[in-house]
Amino acid sequence: MALADTRFATRRRALASKLAAQRIDSILVTSPIHVRYLTGFTGSNGALLLHKDLSARMCTDGRYTTQIGEEVPDIEAMIERASATALLDTVEGDRRVAFEASQTTVAQLDALREAAGEDVQLIPVTGVVESIRLHKDPFEQDRLREVAAVASQAFEDLLSAGELAEGRSERQVAADLEYRMRMLGAERPSFDTIVASGPNSAKPHHGAGDRIIQRGDLVTIDFGAHARGFNSDMTRTIVMGDAGEFETEIYDIVLRAQLAGVEAAYTGTKLVDIDHACRSIIEDAGYGDYFVHSTGHGIGLEVHEAPAAAKTATGVLEEGSTLTIEPGIYVPGRGGVRIEDTLIITAGAPEIITKVGKDLRVV
Amino acid sequence: MALADTRFATRRRALASKLAAQRIDSILVTSPIHVRYLTGFTGSNGALLLHKDLSARMCTDGRYTTQIGEEVPDIEAMIERASATALLDTVEGDRRVAFEASQTTVAQLDALREAAGEDVQLIPVTGVVESIRLHKDPFEQDRLREVAAVASQAFEDLLSAGELAEGRSERQVAADLEYRMRMLGAERPSFDTIVASGPNSAKPHHGAGDRIIQRGDLVTIDFGAHARGFNSDMTRTIVMGDAGEFETEIYDIVLRAQLAGVEAAYTGTKLVDIDHACRSIIEDAGYGDYFVHSTGHGIGLEVHEAPAAAKTATGVLEEGSTLTIEPGIYVPGRGGVRIEDTLIITAGAPEIITKVGKDLRVV
Repeated sequence: MALADTRFATRRRALASKLAAQRIDSILVTSPIHVRYLTGFTGSNGALLLHKDLSARMCTDGRYTTQIGEEVPDIEAMIERASATALLDTVEGDRRVAFEASQTTVAQLDALREAAGEDVQLIPVTGVVESIRLHKDPFEQDRLREVAAVASQAFEDLLSAGELAEGRSERQVAADLEYRMRMLGAERPSFDTIVASGPNSAKPHHGAGDRIIQRGDLVTIDFGAHARGFNSDMTRTIVMGDAGEFETEIYDIVLRAQLAGVEAAYTGTKLVDIDHACRSIIEDAGYGDYFVHSTGHGIGLEVHEAPAAAKTATGVLEEGSTLTIEPGIYVPGRGGVRIEDTLIITAGAPEIITKVGKDLRVV
Repeated sequence: MALADTRFATRRRALASKLAAQRIDSILVTSPIHVRYLTGFTGSNGALLLHKDLSARMCTDGRYTTQIGEEVPDIEAMIERASATALLDTVEGDRRVAFEASQTTVAQLDALREAAGEDVQLIPVTGVVESIRLHKDPFEQDRLREVAAVASQAFEDLLSAGELAEGRSERQVAADLEYRMRMLGAERPSFDTIVASGPNSAKPHHGAGDRIIQRGDLVTIDFGAHARGFNSDMTRTIVMGDAGEFETEIYDIVLRAQLAGVEAAYTGTKLVDIDHACRSIIEDAGYGDYFVHSTGHGIGLEVHEAPAAAKTATGVLEEGSTLTIEPGIYVPGRGGVRIEDTLIITAGAPEIITKVGKDLRVV
């Protein structure tokens, strides 16, 4: 617990120091993910008021009275259903109170304005907590390695057990994979598991339906494990029975693109260059029109978070951030391939935390 | 497809007629749930611009080009990543364009303001689509019956198969129940499955952990199935091995409260009276302080939506809405009981769609 407290207090200190530059007296944090990140509280309703002197107050509703005391022993908590406005009511003497403009709806802001005292100015801030979250601390990196390991292990076990097989439905395979992740410690999938077989593999966002997997199919499986707030994300494409010329060709191109993307993912690299590293290989092979999405995204408390490696990306890759590298080729009516890893960006070579081989696998 | 088109067009007509009263020229809908409700589009990024003359335009990104054409054949779609602002760019001649204040963040509104032409006034509206969603149409009622049936069947099968048993962990039981729901057609659980055993049953929002279920435990299982956009929600509490005096007593009180709540759930009843019907029984039995949450909520495309049956609720129950009735008693350190059904409110007696018996079950 002592360790945990230090970690959350460190994050709050980072937030307070960023706010100091904008002469903010205190900040009202209302998004459940940010409340969790800054305090450790995992309830679905809660708010945090953090003062520039690092004093803090929280509020949640009656369902979480015991839980907030256990999870956040170091911050005084009020119990009130309308947690954000209740906290704002307690503000005394602060003139500039920040709120998160990307996490607050227009209707919520109206309620906050009504609750705020006459002297209080509500200041919109954007991306401040996100900019701290961009750099994963050692605790977060461990959590991310754990969920990636759960997903990787579940996938290997699925293949070893013969659960990806001709004659089974996409839905059955997805259910088996999710069950294995659950039993290995996941609380839920990070997102709806994709098992896209045959022509469905040409749809990047197919789910997992009743189609029966057949010999010769490409099967793209995109999945993740969620535990203790953190998410994983990985994609592998398998060939059923035997690989034809088309399947082998596009697999090889996507694999080369993916390896080039990983190779480019160094601290300081322009994000647009990482996208280009993947995309140019697919374009040069004549499949540029069939790579219809961007190359990768950060992952952590959310499945999709900063940074983004895309054609129109700005900025560079920063140490301590995460990035997926997930090029794909999707040929409507024929089939598709996507290969995706999640990386932690270090001072040196990126660390690949989704540890499943990428050579073409035929089952 | 023809049937589907009619249904979505009917909803859009209802929305347009509500907006007419506020002299709105068109409305920009950006929440994925509302876009789905009004068009049938299931992608994660999409926006709808609906004009008062019922003409409409949509926008999504390149991942969904094929999908939006299949799912929404009757509305012209643009492909652009920033879907909401791209749609706003196309507005010509409209002066009063509504946006949903409860579904739009302050930062999004800033972007919309920048994209809007000089003549366009952005008008915040609240709860308009929600007020249409409150009344479930026959199609929605069927979907809700389906997911409730999946969850009910999975629970009965879990018990028949002996998967709720002493010596198993909460996590194992949750994984088995979720697997069964998945195989019966669920795309995912509606929310993290709760399997709260022994002392954990006294925590209303316990998840499913590593505790091993023991003889004499109360085990509260709260779970739901999500499919085709819709959710179910049901809770049952089981006693392991044999029921002591305390367990029998609180089970009996909660059951009587729950039945009284169902009995009260008629069209036109004040929502506060439904809460009172449950709460007064628990209070009269001396356990009022241990019923720490409200009595129920609507369910549909969201797990928690209007109406709310709570101590402070206003308004009456309306025909065609849904409501959970879920009283509970939670005695810290000893254990708890919650019993929850989902109802569809009709012109006559409420229809209970979670069809699992509620007599005390000992396994």
